[in-house]
Amino acid sequence: MSSSAAQQNLVLGVDSGGSGVRVALASADGGGPAPAGAPWIRASPEPAVTGARGIDARSLLDRVLPAARELLRAAEAERCGAVCVGASGMSTLGDDLRAVLPGALREALGMRRLALASDAVTAYAGALGQRPGAVVAAGTGIVALGTDLSPEGGWRRADGWGHLLGDCGSGAWIGRAGLEAALRAHDGRAGGSAALLERLEAVFGPAAGLPGKLYPRADRPAVLASFAPEVARCAAADEVSAGILRSAARHIAEAAAAVCPRVPEHPATEPAVEPAVCEVALTGGLFGIGEPLLAPVRRELHEQLPGARLTTAAGGPLDGALCVAAALLTDTLLLPADGSLLHVVC
Amino acid sequence: MSSSAAQQNLVLGVDSGGSGVRVALASADGGGPAPAGAPWIRASPEPAVTGARGIDARSLLDRVLPAARELLRAAEAERCGAVCVGASGMSTLGDDLRAVLPGALREALGMRRLALASDAVTAYAGALGQRPGAVVAAGTGIVALGTDLSPEGGWRRADGWGHLLGDCGSGAWIGRAGLEAALRAHDGRAGGSAALLERLEAVFGPAAGLPGKLYPRADRPAVLASFAPEVARCAAADEVSAGILRSAARHIAEAAAAVCPRVPEHPATEPAVEPAVCEVALTGGLFGIGEPLLAPVRRELHEQLPGARLTTAAGGPLDGALCVAAALLTDTLLLPADGSLLHVVC
Repeated sequence: MSSSAAQQNLVLGVDSGGSGVRVALASADGGGPAPAGAPWIRASPEPAVTGARGIDARSLLDRVLPAARELLRAAEAERCGAVCVGASGMSTLGDDLRAVLPGALREALGMRRLALASDAVTAYAGALGQRPGAVVAAGTGIVALGTDLSPEGGWRRADGWGHLLGDCGSGAWIGRAGLEAALRAHDGRAGGSAALLERLEAVFGPAAGLPGKLYPRADRPAVLASFAPEVARCAAADEVSAGILRSAARHIAEAAAAVCPRVPEHPATEPAVEPAVCEVALTGGLFGIGEPLLAPVRRELHEQLPGARLTTAAGGPLDGALCVAAALLTDTLLLPADGSLLHVVC
Repeated sequence: MSSSAAQQNLVLGVDSGGSGVRVALASADGGGPAPAGAPWIRASPEPAVTGARGIDARSLLDRVLPAARELLRAAEAERCGAVCVGASGMSTLGDDLRAVLPGALREALGMRRLALASDAVTAYAGALGQRPGAVVAAGTGIVALGTDLSPEGGWRRADGWGHLLGDCGSGAWIGRAGLEAALRAHDGRAGGSAALLERLEAVFGPAAGLPGKLYPRADRPAVLASFAPEVARCAAADEVSAGILRSAARHIAEAAAAVCPRVPEHPATEPAVEPAVCEVALTGGLFGIGEPLLAPVRRELHEQLPGARLTTAAGGPLDGALCVAAALLTDTLLLPADGSLLHVVC
């Protein structure tokens, strides 16, 4: 791995989000979302700092560069061929990253190619690689991204507006709806759930104290999302909880439907080699709550997107960052590049 | 007004909320929500400070005492007979107020009787005086309070949980739902409203910039509520907006229904002098958006509370504070006193 050619074959992926920063090094040989040879991974539990100027580039570099140098040392290399940095907030809070990262990363890592991507794009590439389709990435928040890979089509995005403006069907949305139903039972209002009130009190203590525990926190969406698994656990025996998950599933399918590449209304009479169905993948921690959510999501997708095929996500956003970096290095990038969601710097 | 007996007949009311502090002085003669002789009013646009210990008593006194002294001077009096302080957050954030206000107010104003009340109680007393019934107070948030005036019945409260846990049907709720529908139209998701998207862009600029304008603010609920009048304006021509107001009306009626004193299921065969119907009053700035909301609220109340009679609120929370102070002074308090919602100190 110490020859110059081998060094040039190395790609570095970065996944920066609310729960920390992960860095992976792999060989570009695989080309797909899981490059041949398992990547080496280093993780920092500290997220990059977000300030008045958006995500602070220096704080991200402080987490990425030591990990990258350590990974390169282990690979007996001094530089890599391509880098993709995927970051939550890249589109809206990424001005400092776009200004500082290109120069700093080139000086430290010597790569020839660099892409800065929204975490929605790395989630997409991790789930579907460079195939057309739609990906719903859901955790505390939720965003759907789709593409038919045509330059004119570009990316279609739905939701991802945060817990006060949307993120419909996300962990924060489900948890918030569950807590509201619990407090309706507490008040004797319609639509309440005694089962959820019992879980609220088990998790947070007396209901009257919940506002004082939630509103002063900076991580309110995460506190709300922490209650989503309780809603899922109650759903088998509690109709209100099951209804919340059905509504969440409808919103999730609505986001997928809004971004799914359109199937031509009058397909060619000659059967195509590949049928023109839209592949849809679900990715992210929310789907870990399992069948209580997945079963209604499958039903809603079947209803709203009868032409779609639900596929298993091949990997996560760190795999997606490696996939984009490998495609850059081998000049095989098919995913649409633009200035915001997927910015190819060089 | 300078005789000792006249001074003892004066009552002081305080209304402390998110938009400032108002102080009124009146004679206790009236006894009802609007004491005879229009009260003198002083207002401070600066709200009391809320810190780690809850509402800071000293900051409230800094606003109340200069206004009270000025009003007493104008009445050629040195002290008053009774005081009622109504404050938003009294129940949950009022520890410092309960500790500091009694001694400080007695020293400064020499009153014999004092009550510390939640703003929901002063809203109730302002709207219905000391009659049994239910009051829904709605602005940025929403809370419903009801009582049959029996000591064992006490107060029944519904909602008032804040914009992340409830406040269903409030200004923040309507505005948030309107912005969500606008962004659904922006994304091409189901349930979107092009009319609301147009209003969003007119008020806040391009949709993509809205998260950056909303989330860093400390007054997020007020920002959301500022969009509620836009939803009301769109409702005549936009079905999505009308649907949002119908849902809000349902939630408002649900809160009223949860607190309305129960009418006996088997009324006495002798007709009572007053029929046992529940009086319901609506109060607060939200209802200023008028018929687009009031019409569906009337329909929902008729549906959910067929035995209720919607009455016009006689006054606001400052009138309610004067009403409670006058009742204290004349030993005619009928509203239920407790340690939290209506705390009679002396």
